[in-house]
Amino acid sequence: MSLMLQEIFEQPHALERTLSSERRHAERLSRRMHERRASLIVLVARGTSDNAAQFGRYLLEISTGIPVSLAAPSVHTLYRARLRLSSAIVIGISQSGESTDINITLENAKRSGAMTIGITNDSSSPLAKIVDEVFVTRAGRERSVAATKTYTTQLMVLYLLASALRNSSGEGFKALARIPEWTARALKLQPTLLEMVERYRFMRQCAVVGRGLNYANALELGIKLMETCYVGAERFSSADFLHGPIAMVEGGFPVFVFAPPGQVFPDIRNLIYKLGRLKAETVVISSETSILEKATRALRIPDRIPDLYSPIPYIVPGQMFSALLAEAKGLSPDRPRSLSKITRTV
Amino acid sequence: MSLMLQEIFEQPHALERTLSSERRHAERLSRRMHERRASLIVLVARGTSDNAAQFGRYLLEISTGIPVSLAAPSVHTLYRARLRLSSAIVIGISQSGESTDINITLENAKRSGAMTIGITNDSSSPLAKIVDEVFVTRAGRERSVAATKTYTTQLMVLYLLASALRNSSGEGFKALARIPEWTARALKLQPTLLEMVERYRFMRQCAVVGRGLNYANALELGIKLMETCYVGAERFSSADFLHGPIAMVEGGFPVFVFAPPGQVFPDIRNLIYKLGRLKAETVVISSETSILEKATRALRIPDRIPDLYSPIPYIVPGQMFSALLAEAKGLSPDRPRSLSKITRTV
Repeated sequence: MSLMLQEIFEQPHALERTLSSERRHAERLSRRMHERRASLIVLVARGTSDNAAQFGRYLLEISTGIPVSLAAPSVHTLYRARLRLSSAIVIGISQSGESTDINITLENAKRSGAMTIGITNDSSSPLAKIVDEVFVTRAGRERSVAATKTYTTQLMVLYLLASALRNSSGEGFKALARIPEWTARALKLQPTLLEMVERYRFMRQCAVVGRGLNYANALELGIKLMETCYVGAERFSSADFLHGPIAMVEGGFPVFVFAPPGQVFPDIRNLIYKLGRLKAETVVISSETSILEKATRALRIPDRIPDLYSPIPYIVPGQMFSALLAEAKGLSPDRPRSLSKITRTV
Repeated sequence: MSLMLQEIFEQPHALERTLSSERRHAERLSRRMHERRASLIVLVARGTSDNAAQFGRYLLEISTGIPVSLAAPSVHTLYRARLRLSSAIVIGISQSGESTDINITLENAKRSGAMTIGITNDSSSPLAKIVDEVFVTRAGRERSVAATKTYTTQLMVLYLLASALRNSSGEGFKALARIPEWTARALKLQPTLLEMVERYRFMRQCAVVGRGLNYANALELGIKLMETCYVGAERFSSADFLHGPIAMVEGGFPVFVFAPPGQVFPDIRNLIYKLGRLKAETVVISSETSILEKATRALRIPDRIPDLYSPIPYIVPGQMFSALLAEAKGLSPDRPRSLSKITRTV
């Protein structure tokens, strides 16, 4: 069994640990964050952590009403701009805490008066030393190059921050404690996936589509397919897909779709109908029979998880698909070519 | 000759018209925009216009110091969040001005007290009626489904807004008037490209890389290749490419790279060296001999255009490549399958 698959299976416990150890920290910080009356939240990250940041951007805007920006690190590191961030909360996300560009951006933000928060899996990393407040993902050491348990625990910390910062009309995130259990149940798709990946052994390219809170999962499944299986994976929101790239889709073109019940469901359903008319090959991740019936291959999430809580359990079949397809292709998902665990970019 | 190619050739004039007709409007608005003391600029767009927005995000942050966010329309249209935007300037960009999600987002922003600005090619469109101030791209009617002259004229309006909003240490954009001439000279690459596309007749997938101000061009060339040539095109900043997706690159894998001289050049050069070691096929767009010599195929921009002014002339060979490759494949770049000129999404 690959390290990647082992680490995928560690997620229910890692999520529980992160929830129980970081929840109080977020609650303690709540008042201080509200007192800042932040006009902006900025998220800074790269790679898989940047996909977590994409989730954070939707979650934080929806639950706090504060606009969110995803930082472009080169503005700081290469163009050396000085942004006005004194009324911002700036959140850096990095598994290793060692990415140069993330850390420079956080230092700049701090210097300009922003409140800075870090989310990292290494409490003694450079990132942890820069920020005002550190949240530690309790994933344990991640040995596979392809990140899985650090991604989902980063999402968990973002829920805690959104909960601490939410406005009066915002959700209370009451069902947060159920996520580890939902995640454990999604892991039961493993035997289905082990058979299913055979069909995709010679897939060279595909598209991955999600929307809203699950757009991050489309980006994340796309990166996993690229780095572990060397499959070209175009990643889109369902709306952006319709503004051009859908022209690529011919009969048999594979499209992976995240389709949780809730706010984005009607939009995603329309896309799946359209893909059906184009005779695309659809792989649909959903709890909803009405849409799974339309799919070429269905990945049924056992629980009817509301959209708000769906991203963590919904990425699980995508992670397993990538790890198992890599093995079916004779590749090691733990050691993709050209990559190492820590990527230092400026 | 395809409409797309005709419209590519109309760009020098369209850019001149846009510059001369909208410059004064931007200057008049300058004081009002400064008086808002905006803590945030939000850009709202889809498809090719969203790629223009990506350019705007870098340009505006670098020249004004005001943080920029690219809006996620579903936060407004599907999740119905109410964002605090009273201290923001919100800029909607749409060729047709008819995209439902863009217009709903602008209406929400206006209601919450934001100053709203529109950039559209149709002065009588719904978008034009919603916003406080309209800037009209003087591209003339765009008949090809694949947008070209509206993209570059949108970039031109964003230069004018950045110039009007720039801070005291910001650039004066003195060379803006030279862009039409640089664009005209880049068009002279047509015969080179006509020969060159033969080599790519059977290319199924590729990656497109840019960074900073030219990251938008990587996204835009990627969309053009997908919608007109049905080529899967992964789009990355050079930094994000190194955080995972570079694992896809094997010998012969085609990578298109934007490499203007300036702030991002050393970073891009390192990537090109790395791609050389991986024996990738590189198509490099640059004025710099040092890097063109390393490319499998070189697209030499005739003028040494500084990074700040490079995005408009640099996209031109990419546009022509897409239009000519589509024709070499027997496709019509003007009528991609599954698309129409106006895409209405929510």
